Amino acid sequence: MYKIYVLLIALFITSEGFSQTNHERDSLTIRSIYDMALLNGKSYDWLDYLSNEIGGRLSGTLNAEKAVKYTQAELEKLGLDKVWLQPVMVPKWTRGFPEYAYIETGPGKTFITDVCALGGSVATPDLGIKAGVIEVQGVEDLAKYGKEQIEGKIVFFNRPMQADLINTFQAYGGCVDQRYAGAMEAAKYGAVGIIVRSMNLRQDDLPHTGTMSYGDTPVNQRIPACAISTNGADLLSNTLKLLPTLQFYFKQNCKVYPDVQSYNVIGEITGTTYPDKYMVVGGHLDSWDLGDGSHDDGAGCVQSMEVLRLFKEINYKPKHSIRVVLFMNEENGLRGGKKYAEEARQKKEKHVFALESDSGGFSPRGFSFDIDDANFAQVKSWESLFKPYLIHYFEKGGSGADIGPLKESGMVLAGLRPDSQRYFDYHHAANDTFDAVNKRELELGGATMASLVYLFDTYGMANGIPSVKK
Amino acid sequence: MYKIYVLLIALFITSEGFSQTNHERDSLTIRSIYDMALLNGKSYDWLDYLSNEIGGRLSGTLNAEKAVKYTQAELEKLGLDKVWLQPVMVPKWTRGFPEYAYIETGPGKTFITDVCALGGSVATPDLGIKAGVIEVQGVEDLAKYGKEQIEGKIVFFNRPMQADLINTFQAYGGCVDQRYAGAMEAAKYGAVGIIVRSMNLRQDDLPHTGTMSYGDTPVNQRIPACAISTNGADLLSNTLKLLPTLQFYFKQNCKVYPDVQSYNVIGEITGTTYPDKYMVVGGHLDSWDLGDGSHDDGAGCVQSMEVLRLFKEINYKPKHSIRVVLFMNEENGLRGGKKYAEEARQKKEKHVFALESDSGGFSPRGFSFDIDDANFAQVKSWESLFKPYLIHYFEKGGSGADIGPLKESGMVLAGLRPDSQRYFDYHHAANDTFDAVNKRELELGGATMASLVYLFDTYGMANGIPSVKK
Repeated sequence: MYKIYVLLIALFITSEGFSQTNHERDSLTIRSIYDMALLNGKSYDWLDYLSNEIGGRLSGTLNAEKAVKYTQAELEKLGLDKVWLQPVMVPKWTRGFPEYAYIETGPGKTFITDVCALGGSVATPDLGIKAGVIEVQGVEDLAKYGKEQIEGKIVFFNRPMQADLINTFQAYGGCVDQRYAGAMEAAKYGAVGIIVRSMNLRQDDLPHTGTMSYGDTPVNQRIPACAISTNGADLLSNTLKLLPTLQFYFKQNCKVYPDVQSYNVIGEITGTTYPDKYMVVGGHLDSWDLGDGSHDDGAGCVQSMEVLRLFKEINYKPKHSIRVVLFMNEENGLRGGKKYAEEARQKKEKHVFALESDSGGFSPRGFSFDIDDANFAQVKSWESLFKPYLIHYFEKGGSGADIGPLKESGMVLAGLRPDSQRYFDYHHAANDTFDAVNKRELELGGATMASLVYLFDTYGMANGIPSVKK
Repeated sequence: MYKIYVLLIALFITSEGFSQTNHERDSLTIRSIYDMALLNGKSYDWLDYLSNEIGGRLSGTLNAEKAVKYTQAELEKLGLDKVWLQPVMVPKWTRGFPEYAYIETGPGKTFITDVCALGGSVATPDLGIKAGVIEVQGVEDLAKYGKEQIEGKIVFFNRPMQADLINTFQAYGGCVDQRYAGAMEAAKYGAVGIIVRSMNLRQDDLPHTGTMSYGDTPVNQRIPACAISTNGADLLSNTLKLLPTLQFYFKQNCKVYPDVQSYNVIGEITGTTYPDKYMVVGGHLDSWDLGDGSHDDGAGCVQSMEVLRLFKEINYKPKHSIRVVLFMNEENGLRGGKKYAEEARQKKEKHVFALESDSGGFSPRGFSFDIDDANFAQVKSWESLFKPYLIHYFEKGGSGADIGPLKESGMVLAGLRPDSQRYFDYHHAANDTFDAVNKRELELGGATMASLVYLFDTYGMANGIPSVKK
């Protein structure tokens, strides 16, 4: 009995001593990551170039290709073990200019409103479309009004984002079906076009674009779809109440071209112990065309690049192979994310962890995890390490669109979760520009990502996926 | 033994049942507070008026008096039990225009730089001051250089804010002695003026003002003090390294007038159970003169007003008397805060809790508490109620300047702690304007304050201060 007692105490002391040492080492490493990011960060300069020297990076455009070349060149300067481009064919949809709209309340009485084509929409006829408007609060309202009230009209989807939801992404999720599926559903009832209230929690004059789908609607039955600003939506809705017979006019010039060659940009620090076990950090290099794509998702790209740069700068040599992947075509196709996952499976590359930053470059609050219980418990044990940096959000939930296709049983997917309150003020709109990103907030996000990757790399996966030394 | 066991179980069930009910009631009340703030908030409109219709509200100015009248009138619309003005004499310092500066590197070779007078500074002579410059990294450097190197020169305090500190207020605290005491200390060594690097973590062209003191320096030995933008500071520092003999010129036109009459604006909901126990929420109504004072501290004022409005809207009748106090003259005198505390003592008003919002209108993260252990334990027991709103920061620390003078043994003082990363981009500078405040973030701050006040009002003080029914 005495022996067991002594043994237990010895074990306790040893394990406590060990874990104390680990905790101190982890604290110091994480402190050095944040210090490097805040005192000698590179992400803000990279974003400056992507946003101000290149600009919006819609898939298939010259700007998107410039961004591929620029980020490849910058990764090559970091002294990584490998940098390469992964070819992927991407769709090429163009907005065309000018696009415009007005409300007509009588002969010659018109009010210009701010609209933009939804991504993937067809053009209007050359002369535009003019028709009466029926306002609905969502796709589910269409059946209520039926063909008799909808046919020949423009359907106006006006359900706003719910302002009382604290997580603005949840508010977005509660509305975005109008944008994504509104046109294909309204066409079934004979609508000639649709207008969607912008997914924006703020009242302003900026229309917000975003992807939409016609599903299997035959090409000759596809109707044009535009977004209207929140102020415009309120004006239209109020005017409709006063004058249900008003006419709405809009004109857009979208075109779809054949797919074009593009690339995911990939850099790797090869693991010292488990070179064939991969951990990915990434964002998407493409953006919408109205702004510079600084928050969506230039921020996520430069933060992901920064993770690998920080490791090099603090001379941390990861055990696993750490890859930064700048995915192409998240916005209107997800071709890059699918391609990366497809090739990883073909090559039997074992991915154990992936982290995406695609929620804006705002102050980081934590992470959302697509994760099993064992790994989640491990993450929870790291919470105190993040407390000095005010990182407090560690919850189960979604991760990121681009890394989703990588998902395999037992793998951990994570998404950086910055403060979300301002995100939809800028999302997919003309004001998603560099000046809306704060340097410190961006840098804190990159450091927070690097710290999580460091911990997963150091402790491996907790769910029995073997990180076996070869 | 059996009886004790039964008794214990009964107690357990009862207390659990009771606390479960309380938790549910509190959850629902707090949800209703946030819903009201986000769906039907008033703080943003109030701030719009204060910022855009009135503007900067330096103590002693017409704008400050307009703000007193406006907020009094708005509080009167809320149906509070009492609204009144508390007279307080405030200093009147004016900047005077124009103010300007340049670096001279040779005859006729000058570079204009961006400066502003520090609050409380004397004017330069009519023709301005031109002198050589000695750069120091802080007040403590003065003794090192001594009178022989400083006399007749302008001292340039250039210690920057530490970018690796996560709490930017800590970084501010580490620099602000240069601004506050730089002139009085440099004058002792015969300096003819001082330049202070702006307390800004960002590189830009905006000088940031703020209060300074001459201590007991005789009037005829007071030297003018200005702030230079961070870009200007770097230009000056770099140019000094190349040309230590450069001359710096600046001109400012500050004046001090006799004290003028002003007011704290106060509104009260009288408590149902403890009408003579007071809980205060507040911010300061005055601001610096360069911007609109939207973050500092228009935000705190309208959030504090919102706390009382929310209680009225959700029909919550507090047990304690809840006061909103909009303090005058925090920035350059703290006369309002001192006056309120002084009168409270004279009238023997028992204050048990005070909460200030004076850290900007950004996304709220939690509170800092000047608090005893019993009340802190109580606060910690409320943490889960705040989790749905991502409010996670509950730490001991400072509260707010205006409520500081109220401090008495056993009383709880608290400060709202919003995300601090962007705060010093705007603090005391020309860009502290309405457009820099996000509606949702402002509203979340007000709701978070109201929720804390609700909890303290409901549960009372945990430290034995009797909230005795009269």
